Amino acid sequence: MKSLDRFVRALRRLPGVGPRQAERFAAYFLRASQGETEEFISALSSLKQDIKLCQTCFCYSETEQCPICADKDRDHSQICVVEDPQDIEVLEKTKAYKGVYHVLHGAISPLDGRSAEHVKVRELLTRVQNAQPPVREIIIATDPDSEGETTALYLADLLRGQVEQITRIGYGVPLGGDIDYIDEMTLGYSLKGRTKI
Amino acid sequence: MKSLDRFVRALRRLPGVGPRQAERFAAYFLRASQGETEEFISALSSLKQDIKLCQTCFCYSETEQCPICADKDRDHSQICVVEDPQDIEVLEKTKAYKGVYHVLHGAISPLDGRSAEHVKVRELLTRVQNAQPPVREIIIATDPDSEGETTALYLADLLRGQVEQITRIGYGVPLGGDIDYIDEMTLGYSLKGRTKI
Repeated sequence: MKSLDRFVRALRRLPGVGPRQAERFAAYFLRASQGETEEFISALSSLKQDIKLCQTCFCYSETEQCPICADKDRDHSQICVVEDPQDIEVLEKTKAYKGVYHVLHGAISPLDGRSAEHVKVRELLTRVQNAQPPVREIIIATDPDSEGETTALYLADLLRGQVEQITRIGYGVPLGGDIDYIDEMTLGYSLKGRTKI
Repeated sequence: MKSLDRFVRALRRLPGVGPRQAERFAAYFLRASQGETEEFISALSSLKQDIKLCQTCFCYSETEQCPICADKDRDHSQICVVEDPQDIEVLEKTKAYKGVYHVLHGAISPLDGRSAEHVKVRELLTRVQNAQPPVREIIIATDPDSEGETTALYLADLLRGQVEQITRIGYGVPLGGDIDYIDEMTLGYSLKGRTKI
């Protein structure tokens, strides 16, 4: 059935979805009422329509400035650089950080052909150069894997001299891990134990 | 973000999707291009629009009669009863069956409040009573779990006298399995159902 194959192909693009799970999802939609399907489509359309990137930190936001960037009580002289918007959520749960963020939307990975132009590095540099008051500290919280480390070193080189200090989250985080899979305790320790690079 | 929460709620209705996976799927769509998202929505809409239930066996079909029911070379006097449309695909792969099918769309499960009216049992009875030529054999291939067994017994009672014979798929050890991982019930059945070699 062509329509089924086409939808299964679309489902297979979702992260981690294999042929079996895609078929089970398709079966769910075939069984679902018209109303349920319409709600799904409408929720997806709203998601794409309502949620944009914050013009300052590039996390997802329903407003031009995300609530964190718009918060005057946060320390805007401290920027924590992360790979993905989801990372912010976990970092916020630690309650160990009161600065602001910058989302790169990926990491530099020369092997996969992802250079600095593919992530929001230039935007970070511009932001730091124009910051008023000036940025005091950049905390690099990219994933502790090879791409994240490459990105951290690249950023440290790029930003040296632009800010008072550049730090890397402490190696309480297990190497080879993925930031948004790590428990809050470990992440909290890694924030406290950050080191200069 | 309301739109995000709403879409995550819609995703959580998919079978086996937990909060983590729902978030990862939402992140995929947030990153996806407008074109990719539109293709997904369009594929889902086509799925719901093009695929109906076969009016004879109730499997999914793009035509009023599915290709199996419309196939004159198949044995229409032999009906294999399954719980879900996906079961047909696996049974077809065996190449051991040349009859037709009947999809119940579930199993009888009194504990979950699912009685015979919730599955296509009445439709099966009507089909058997009106069949020309008459149905010779009903093979009950519901799942070998408690709901499937309940359904098998219910169908056997209901259809007795309507057809020449009612059979249940054989119980035994699955090929490629490991004897010491197989439960005693199955092993017991496999001993009773042993065949000469």
